[in-house]
Amino acid sequence: MNNRLVTFLPAGVQVEVEPGTDLLTAAGKANIEIKAPCGGDGTCGKCAVRIKSGNVKARRDSHLATRIAEKGLNLACQTLVQDEDLVVEIPNTSSMSKHQVLGENASVGAGVSDALSNYLLHVWQLKELLLEKQESPLNGYPLNPLCRRVRLTLPVANLQDNRDDLNRLTMALKKEINCKDIHVPLSIIQKLGEILRVDQFKVTVLLSEVGGKVEIIAVEPGHGHQPLYGIAVDIGTTTVVAYLLDLEKGRVIDTAGTHNRQARFGDDVISRIVYAVEEPDGLNTVHQSIIGTINTLIMDLLVKQRHIRETDIHVMMTAGNTTMAHLFLGINPKFIRLEPYIPTANFYPVVKAQELGLKINPDALVFSYASVASYVGGDIVSGTLFTAMGNEDAPISLLIDIGTNGEMVLGAGDWLVTCSCSAGPAFEGSGILFGMRAMHGAIERMQIDPQTYEVAYTTINNGKAVGICGSGLIDCLAKLKSTGVIDRAGKFQTSLPTERMRIGETGPEFVLVWREDTDINRDIVICEADVKNLLRAKGAVFAGIRTLLNVVGFELESIENIYVAGGFGNYLNIPDAIAIGLLPDIPVEKYKYVGNTSAKGACMALLSQEAWQEANNLAGKMTYIELSVGNLFMDEFVSSLFIPHTDLTLFPNVSI
Amino acid sequence: MNNRLVTFLPAGVQVEVEPGTDLLTAAGKANIEIKAPCGGDGTCGKCAVRIKSGNVKARRDSHLATRIAEKGLNLACQTLVQDEDLVVEIPNTSSMSKHQVLGENASVGAGVSDALSNYLLHVWQLKELLLEKQESPLNGYPLNPLCRRVRLTLPVANLQDNRDDLNRLTMALKKEINCKDIHVPLSIIQKLGEILRVDQFKVTVLLSEVGGKVEIIAVEPGHGHQPLYGIAVDIGTTTVVAYLLDLEKGRVIDTAGTHNRQARFGDDVISRIVYAVEEPDGLNTVHQSIIGTINTLIMDLLVKQRHIRETDIHVMMTAGNTTMAHLFLGINPKFIRLEPYIPTANFYPVVKAQELGLKINPDALVFSYASVASYVGGDIVSGTLFTAMGNEDAPISLLIDIGTNGEMVLGAGDWLVTCSCSAGPAFEGSGILFGMRAMHGAIERMQIDPQTYEVAYTTINNGKAVGICGSGLIDCLAKLKSTGVIDRAGKFQTSLPTERMRIGETGPEFVLVWREDTDINRDIVICEADVKNLLRAKGAVFAGIRTLLNVVGFELESIENIYVAGGFGNYLNIPDAIAIGLLPDIPVEKYKYVGNTSAKGACMALLSQEAWQEANNLAGKMTYIELSVGNLFMDEFVSSLFIPHTDLTLFPNVSI
Repeated sequence: MNNRLVTFLPAGVQVEVEPGTDLLTAAGKANIEIKAPCGGDGTCGKCAVRIKSGNVKARRDSHLATRIAEKGLNLACQTLVQDEDLVVEIPNTSSMSKHQVLGENASVGAGVSDALSNYLLHVWQLKELLLEKQESPLNGYPLNPLCRRVRLTLPVANLQDNRDDLNRLTMALKKEINCKDIHVPLSIIQKLGEILRVDQFKVTVLLSEVGGKVEIIAVEPGHGHQPLYGIAVDIGTTTVVAYLLDLEKGRVIDTAGTHNRQARFGDDVISRIVYAVEEPDGLNTVHQSIIGTINTLIMDLLVKQRHIRETDIHVMMTAGNTTMAHLFLGINPKFIRLEPYIPTANFYPVVKAQELGLKINPDALVFSYASVASYVGGDIVSGTLFTAMGNEDAPISLLIDIGTNGEMVLGAGDWLVTCSCSAGPAFEGSGILFGMRAMHGAIERMQIDPQTYEVAYTTINNGKAVGICGSGLIDCLAKLKSTGVIDRAGKFQTSLPTERMRIGETGPEFVLVWREDTDINRDIVICEADVKNLLRAKGAVFAGIRTLLNVVGFELESIENIYVAGGFGNYLNIPDAIAIGLLPDIPVEKYKYVGNTSAKGACMALLSQEAWQEANNLAGKMTYIELSVGNLFMDEFVSSLFIPHTDLTLFPNVSI
Repeated sequence: MNNRLVTFLPAGVQVEVEPGTDLLTAAGKANIEIKAPCGGDGTCGKCAVRIKSGNVKARRDSHLATRIAEKGLNLACQTLVQDEDLVVEIPNTSSMSKHQVLGENASVGAGVSDALSNYLLHVWQLKELLLEKQESPLNGYPLNPLCRRVRLTLPVANLQDNRDDLNRLTMALKKEINCKDIHVPLSIIQKLGEILRVDQFKVTVLLSEVGGKVEIIAVEPGHGHQPLYGIAVDIGTTTVVAYLLDLEKGRVIDTAGTHNRQARFGDDVISRIVYAVEEPDGLNTVHQSIIGTINTLIMDLLVKQRHIRETDIHVMMTAGNTTMAHLFLGINPKFIRLEPYIPTANFYPVVKAQELGLKINPDALVFSYASVASYVGGDIVSGTLFTAMGNEDAPISLLIDIGTNGEMVLGAGDWLVTCSCSAGPAFEGSGILFGMRAMHGAIERMQIDPQTYEVAYTTINNGKAVGICGSGLIDCLAKLKSTGVIDRAGKFQTSLPTERMRIGETGPEFVLVWREDTDINRDIVICEADVKNLLRAKGAVFAGIRTLLNVVGFELESIENIYVAGGFGNYLNIPDAIAIGLLPDIPVEKYKYVGNTSAKGACMALLSQEAWQEANNLAGKMTYIELSVGNLFMDEFVSSLFIPHTDLTLFPNVSI
């Protein structure tokens, strides 16, 4: 059969696909990203599009599809191209937008009405921190980058000294840097003869020296002085951020961020694994998707810095969770998801850029942060390095990163225990009626008047409200409880004297924003099921903390520092988070926002061999606690499903 | 412009080329090999073809082209495709033939009328030696192959023992084989999870353990018992021979030989280097040419052994001269040819099959024999290993390999000196009016009646004479001298009472075979210029031997063994070679034919880590004597341009 042409509006991008292809896949082929948190299962309803012309067919009937159809829309994932060309409009609410990076002069958030705005705000702040405030990305480690330059003047060959070129080079190098084991890749040997003779046996060798082994990355003629570049990449499940570093000056030159193109295979790591394992060529597709994402970022950075060639970037460091690391390297992630949850690898081989198709020097070395277990990845190890929790004199500290999973590390110097609790993606807006990620129009702060039950709120970018994001949900839960809208178990007090309290389709609900004040032409409400989901999420996190403490025999009060990491962190209202029992009731001054520690740790490791070595030490020394073994976690979890907790003595400063 | 179709007869192979392409290049594209010792310069006249239909154009006029044209032929290298399709016939005399390998039941030489017959005879004898006579290819070294198999039963993963798969594997391996440094390639890690679980964590690991480092080549499910295969390849400038080995049984399973497809870029290494350096994409073309040659041999071996898959071959060892090693690995050979004659590398990296496009297990390791200098390569090191000259108790021995260059090694245990003398390709038939390689119809033995000057001779395969090959030329020179046809300086005695002595186009000449007894319809003669060329060739070899002895302060009589290597060796008449002053005048029983020591040494190194280690030791310990430095060699050379020598005391047993 002949292919059909699908035109996506408003971008006007066209793609040819076979009849029978669904529109989500077609959009993916066109590099247009449509929201699909469920991974194309037809269950989340976020991928609604409008067919402007041409006939289509539904994959199957469903209540959701019918509801969507009433609005004149179709679920992209369930709508199949037939025998006609199509014109398809993607509403703003379904679009993840093209990648968009804040330029030097862009005003933060102005007009950035997309999923990235908040995250990019965050990147921007980090950038400001690193660039304008001149904070060193080394964070105390010595500058000793993973790729360095050695300038050599070799003895000129003649009939008396007729050693071969390779020997001439390695002998001189051994003398210069005092090493034994030097590996020169074939691709460099192939052209070594010419290179040595361009500038009369004066050459610059770029090399990486890790664990006593020297790997040659490039040999260049003469004694050049151009900067030496590396790239650090934080591979998040949602967002990927790259940092261009000057390795010799030890500073960040620029950053670029975009969303992970894998998003079209689902929002969470499980959906990605399922796609990789179950679809034909799925692993390669998901793998190429993240490689493509990173290559786009590299091009972004280079386009901004026009004098840098791709091949001038000689080393890359990545940090991401265990699934991201597997997919980045093309390692089958199948067993991460199946009990007993075994990753194929926790320590990853150093590979060459060309093995992965990364668009930098093909011989560049690509390092990946080691993981600890299937659900405690290199991003957490990177964060642990950044916080210095593993340093000899470190007090007892807790690092906590709340996303789809709540990962945490508890420790002090010698010992570090870690776990991951399946908090669920409630704080990311998933499973919440009007939940959403932190983007334009999301409610992020909220007050409820204890007398009138009127709601005051602020939204991201001050846009008209379209939903409520994580920090807003925590505020909301705290305020619902403190004003008595819900009780300690999350049950709604339906008798409240306000029309905001009503019985909706799913039971009791509380109206947060009236229809006329929204941008979605519907009342924004929170319902009892939402509250239950939030309680489970916050309960899992707190139970995780309690379990770790229990394993090592400490109490909440022993914790000297709590590091709150991740994009979510900076927007979290700590007192509210304590009030609902998400975070421990210890003095607020012991809490520290540490931001995107995964990215910061990646930069550190790239700039300092000592940091990289310590990162590997940390990964090796962290003890992983599998919460599904034994009853400890489950008991703690059940006790944590109240606000703030069943055991009120754990929250002495929270008023009930 | 549109491409034109060229049909080559008798094979009927067709190829499309652009107008302006020469027929030698067109034939190359069609994988048809035409002789071109001059590398397509239009100077050797060996590539004559017959245009059956279509119009062509000569690149330029030349006397040679005119002479060829008189016979109704065109030089393929000088004949350009025009605007018509062509039919081109390749005469037998210009064809190198398709590769042709003696099968198990083929009778040697029967009907094998091509350049390979003699060489293949040689391969056949080696094969007989190895297969039928059960001679061990190990030659005294222990069986300890470069790829071996370790069977592991790993602890099954569960919630209590949730180490990652890679760690589980490497820990078990370290315990089993007591090693520290294990490298697992990414391609294996990518699918490791599935592999471990096919047979409940029972796996077979194929690995190479060299110099304390372990490289994993494959991980296979279960504890299989299929044979473990490797391939040893002798990369000759003219001929390439591959040996399929059972690594665990330590035996050769089969061999296959073919000519080196690079021949179309010229007969000798210099032509190949010139092509690689000066033609657009030349290096890659010449590189791919040898890779293609080897892949053809691999397929040959595998087709014969139908149950073996390409991917079942896990390791390869190659030995060849320095230029061949460079071209095999795609290393620019430019500086081998230019003073001070520096190879890019003497010790080559171990690479993966996939880096070179070799059609075996992509992760298979490919080892290359180390060279000593630009003109003393891995083939000589391999031969030195085979002769055991470097062993502690070895007597003073000389290894000599006469081809285009005469390479030789002199030594005893601790010390080894080596050199290469530009003997020129006279013994390969080049530069000799009726010279030819050892192929069908070549005169290989000769007697001249001292009274009548009648000539008795034998030819290869007893075919009608077409020319004279190396062993025939040595016989010829010795007999010309002993019968007084020439004097000690190589000057013809034109007054001899025989019509065989006459003045030809180039001066005095002696008829070896009358026209009616030949297969070429011309008298086969030897002329004074031929004799001069032969004297220079033999003189260079002998001068090389004397120079080496001089360097270490020994006399000819000190030599206890002379190993004569190479395809040439077995057919050499030693007394005649001594009589003309090519080889030293020491007792004939001290001479030993050792055959293709390059191939034999390659098999040894593949089957024994100890042999491989010793090969590398040898390459490191051999002292290369550059003959162009100082006057020593030149003085010796000038003294050697007589029969047998200026200094007759060096040849006490040769009657003048």
